[in-house]
Amino acid sequence: MGMISFCQFGAGRIGSIHAANLAAHSDARLHTIVDTDRDAAERLAKRYGAAVGDQAKALADPAIDAVLIASSTDTHADLVEAAARAGKAIFCEKPLDLDRRRAKACAAVAEECRVPLMVAFNRRFDPNFARLESELRAGRIGSPEILRITSYDPAPPPIEFVRRSGGLFRDMMIHDLDMACWLLGEEPVELFAAASVLVEPAIGEAGDVDTAVVTLRMKSGVLCQIANTRRAVYGYDQRIEVLGSKGGLSAENVVESTVVFSGAEGVVGDKPLPFFLQRYADAYRRELDHFVTAVAGGTAPLVGAKEGIRALALADAAAESARTGRPVAL
Amino acid sequence: MGMISFCQFGAGRIGSIHAANLAAHSDARLHTIVDTDRDAAERLAKRYGAAVGDQAKALADPAIDAVLIASSTDTHADLVEAAARAGKAIFCEKPLDLDRRRAKACAAVAEECRVPLMVAFNRRFDPNFARLESELRAGRIGSPEILRITSYDPAPPPIEFVRRSGGLFRDMMIHDLDMACWLLGEEPVELFAAASVLVEPAIGEAGDVDTAVVTLRMKSGVLCQIANTRRAVYGYDQRIEVLGSKGGLSAENVVESTVVFSGAEGVVGDKPLPFFLQRYADAYRRELDHFVTAVAGGTAPLVGAKEGIRALALADAAAESARTGRPVAL
Amino acid sequence: MGMISFCQFGAGRIGSIHAANLAAHSDARLHTIVDTDRDAAERLAKRYGAAVGDQAKALADPAIDAVLIASSTDTHADLVEAAARAGKAIFCEKPLDLDRRRAKACAAVAEECRVPLMVAFNRRFDPNFARLESELRAGRIGSPEILRITSYDPAPPPIEFVRRSGGLFRDMMIHDLDMACWLLGEEPVELFAAASVLVEPAIGEAGDVDTAVVTLRMKSGVLCQIANTRRAVYGYDQRIEVLGSKGGLSAENVVESTVVFSGAEGVVGDKPLPFFLQRYADAYRRELDHFVTAVAGGTAPLVGAKEGIRALALADAAAESARTGRPVAL
Amino acid sequence: MGMISFCQFGAGRIGSIHAANLAAHSDARLHTIVDTDRDAAERLAKRYGAAVGDQAKALADPAIDAVLIASSTDTHADLVEAAARAGKAIFCEKPLDLDRRRAKACAAVAEECRVPLMVAFNRRFDPNFARLESELRAGRIGSPEILRITSYDPAPPPIEFVRRSGGLFRDMMIHDLDMACWLLGEEPVELFAAASVLVEPAIGEAGDVDTAVVTLRMKSGVLCQIANTRRAVYGYDQRIEVLGSKGGLSAENVVESTVVFSGAEGVVGDKPLPFFLQRYADAYRRELDHFVTAVAGGTAPLVGAKEGIRALALADAAAESARTGRPVAL
Repeated sequence: MGMISFCQFGAGRIGSIHAANLAAHSDARLHTIVDTDRDAAERLAKRYGAAVGDQAKALADPAIDAVLIASSTDTHADLVEAAARAGKAIFCEKPLDLDRRRAKACAAVAEECRVPLMVAFNRRFDPNFARLESELRAGRIGSPEILRITSYDPAPPPIEFVRRSGGLFRDMMIHDLDMACWLLGEEPVELFAAASVLVEPAIGEAGDVDTAVVTLRMKSGVLCQIANTRRAVYGYDQRIEVLGSKGGLSAENVVESTVVFSGAEGVVGDKPLPFFLQRYADAYRRELDHFVTAVAGGTAPLVGAKEGIRALALADAAAESARTGRPVAL
Repeated sequence: MGMISFCQFGAGRIGSIHAANLAAHSDARLHTIVDTDRDAAERLAKRYGAAVGDQAKALADPAIDAVLIASSTDTHADLVEAAARAGKAIFCEKPLDLDRRRAKACAAVAEECRVPLMVAFNRRFDPNFARLESELRAGRIGSPEILRITSYDPAPPPIEFVRRSGGLFRDMMIHDLDMACWLLGEEPVELFAAASVLVEPAIGEAGDVDTAVVTLRMKSGVLCQIANTRRAVYGYDQRIEVLGSKGGLSAENVVESTVVFSGAEGVVGDKPLPFFLQRYADAYRRELDHFVTAVAGGTAPLVGAKEGIRALALADAAAESARTGRPVAL
Repeated sequence: MGMISFCQFGAGRIGSIHAANLAAHSDARLHTIVDTDRDAAERLAKRYGAAVGDQAKALADPAIDAVLIASSTDTHADLVEAAARAGKAIFCEKPLDLDRRRAKACAAVAEECRVPLMVAFNRRFDPNFARLESELRAGRIGSPEILRITSYDPAPPPIEFVRRSGGLFRDMMIHDLDMACWLLGEEPVELFAAASVLVEPAIGEAGDVDTAVVTLRMKSGVLCQIANTRRAVYGYDQRIEVLGSKGGLSAENVVESTVVFSGAEGVVGDKPLPFFLQRYADAYRRELDHFVTAVAGGTAPLVGAKEGIRALALADAAAESARTGRPVAL
Repeated sequence: MGMISFCQFGAGRIGSIHAANLAAHSDARLHTIVDTDRDAAERLAKRYGAAVGDQAKALADPAIDAVLIASSTDTHADLVEAAARAGKAIFCEKPLDLDRRRAKACAAVAEECRVPLMVAFNRRFDPNFARLESELRAGRIGSPEILRITSYDPAPPPIEFVRRSGGLFRDMMIHDLDMACWLLGEEPVELFAAASVLVEPAIGEAGDVDTAVVTLRMKSGVLCQIANTRRAVYGYDQRIEVLGSKGGLSAENVVESTVVFSGAEGVVGDKPLPFFLQRYADAYRRELDHFVTAVAGGTAPLVGAKEGIRALALADAAAESARTGRPVAL
């Protein structure tokens, strides 16, 4: 298998990133774009020399090897099933579905059809976090004991987004819950969440929270703390630190530039990159590259339905713990 | 009131620090040292030109204005009561007592006798944490929303120390619990702790834990995460960060020197100062200075029995939460 | 003018970078590659869907709008003249020629033929240095007073390269001399150089130096210090700092990752990116983008023959000063 | 020899520091203070329980072992000679005299009288610089190749001070010239200086400069760059970096606190300590301690007249080079 030919579903913000990365990839080709917003699909298709298509034809087209699902969350599960049945390799934005049973069902179809299915947890592919993980794996700090994840958005999303997002735990913390399991290489046995509405009362009115902290206890007794907020005015704050028996490892923020100003007000460095499009630009390239390499080589992608469903289960548990005020056994 | 004349109880490790600071203070005098280890008392007394005395005489001596209690924890409450009844101002190492009722009882005596009583939470006087607090107070980051405290010892204490320490929560995390209340300026309403034995099995056999994380929810909904371990091989890791509505503030570690080496293995900065004697050397000076100034000026020290007892209550709650696996309402 | 169509001369290390950037640019097209090493030209051409051509035909081809000269230094001046006479816009790797008169002569031809000529001083397009420059220009530190440039290669080049390089001053420091003029926005009036052979005796035997420092005095009295070495074992050390009447600005190294390890040996951050291909990857993209935009818009590129010749004159003066031990008036 | 008893000459700004350090030193005693400003002497004497005396009596007093000379520069040489003839050990603030012959003459007297004479180059005793030196000495970066010293004052001194200071090179850069020789452990053979008046026209009118850079070539070919200015608005900027065959070492600024603010304007760390009193507080303690230990132990202090005179000679050469525009062979 040489060049992998893609049909991409979704031509919005995240779709634009994937389309650019597909176009630039030496072993991938952006064959067709499908979006209910025909204009958006056409703009993107034109830019990268792709066709605009519809789902049925695209999935029936033997020239297409793989699908990249970057459409709205409520379409993911159906697309996964349809693509699986058409025998296409599947790269799907997280989550498979906000409903865990639906997610499991569509994953089962993919498994049955024996097509590769990758769930795009982009942070695993951030070069800094990936480097931290490889150091951990290599035993640089011995056995991990305490993991701490900082994950702050720069500003709250529009309230309509909040309403259909599944809530902070399923939309935002799901990434951190996946990272915790991946970095520690084991399963959590207990979870406790505390959450507040401190940033935006409208978020509370919509039934969600905007500030949350979670404690995970892993099977081995290792402890993990996660903190999320919808607003850090200085930018997208994405850091991880791990303490182990032989030392500590941290991955610090990526800043806009290395320029430092020294003046009467202090020594001023640049802010973290503003949001995920900038911070995870490399991660988006690298996750796609991982998928293309896996599909081309006939191996399974390293993060699939199982990981997507586990993270969703943890997010559900966190939401429950925050609501009931009690820890949840897993 | 000009020069404040002190009788110091305790000539051990922490006593040596206080004696040196008393000797160097322009408005204080180290008059008498009392210790059951007569040799230790004499060594220290000789070094700073003080007398060696016994408790009864010292408390009866009108030339003595104040006592500094740096003897073993189980003597604190009795000494506080005796000193209070003798009308001396009291500077007492934390905790007043490991038993909260006993602590309250001795505090009540001090109050009755109307003597100033300061409980020495040294970290409030660390210049970096004090600076963070004053920035917070001044509104630099607006309303605080998430507070995170890192407090890692470099190496576990001897197992005999562990046995009589009251446990990690009462011995070690009590500092962080006090800091959380002080920095946020409000009371916690709920606490959840998770703890493990990951560092030293003997600590577990002694009935204690060596790794612990705590979540506090404050009255206003502000959230706080604390992490403790008995071992960070790179030194004494003491950091605080707060996120607020208008930005973030952090106090980073104090390092051994500003020397940086760049070589094949990376860019290597110096480690944090090794332990509390070095890291909090300034804090010990500043807390004593605060007490001397308060006593000389006839004002109450800013941290007294109330704060000491509150921190103890939180530590007890944390121990309970870790034991039962349930959050504790406060 | 829409898409700019390029003929690229040179398919070596630097040519590969430019070819990739041309291929990825939305307004440029890599039409033809010319190299005396036909295999190298073919490999690159195949990768990016370009043709392999020869100089005469390519320059005669009206489908080609611009040339990118990335061949060996001794071919630059001839190619500039030939391309100018063919009416092509010219992007030329520095230097135009190691001989200043030859450089001037070819620049004169380009001027006569009224074709745009850009000399590729890549560092001006590094995002960090560009940011520092824009802060300087915006007056953030008032009037500059002292500029200091650190420019250390990771390891000495092969001795054959040293022999035909024109020497450290013309090959390496020429970049820093250009940066000094650009950042300070004025001309130097005096230069003093001191140089040694400390890294590699063979470099001395080849008549060159491997370690050098230069002092520039600018017309206004502003002072500038540059330091160069052929070996910094920790990587490519590229930093700039400026002190001004209202503060200081520095651009620090770009590191391989933000991962930090804390252990018994200290707090270890990652090394600077290893060499120019990595460190200036963005700069190569940005300089090409600047040229394409300038050509497409009919404006002159911001760095041309004049700047190239000035930097060469300063490098010659530095070599002279190092040889004679005397300052050179400019 | 147990306790070393001092007569201190000078009760001004720098005298206050030395008096406090003498008073706090366990092996030293501040016996007598002499100052032409009797009130100043009395204030200081009272604070530390010392006597106020006059020069003749103090030098004749057998109870006095050592003198600490912190009076105005023009009195140093005479005091050194008088103290030497009285057999006292001598700790003298730099310089011995602004005139090199006078400095040599007084040093000769001290040598003749066989009294220890230390010239107080405080920076050698800064813990960070001392740490850098010991790493260098231990071979951590192999052979040094390029040394760079940044030494910026926060604000220009009063113009009357400038007039009697001996000029920037003798007053300010003398420290850096001493550091260069000390750190590199060898003698310079050539020096080139360039200087400007950029900060304060009145400094130029007084015949001095306020901005200067110097290049030193050491005997082995190692190169050194020094930069000085009378004004860095963000504080006292005191940094050193060395590149060697096996890596680099730098000593960074010491900051006011470790508190970092992250906000819309960036990530803001604290400024460097404001000026020498704060930055070199530890250095003043450590240099005195070194002298006391040397005198008590009968060994020669590590920095004496020879080093003081060498630094003065280099400062004179720098002033000459800046005036003539030519390098000076040493």
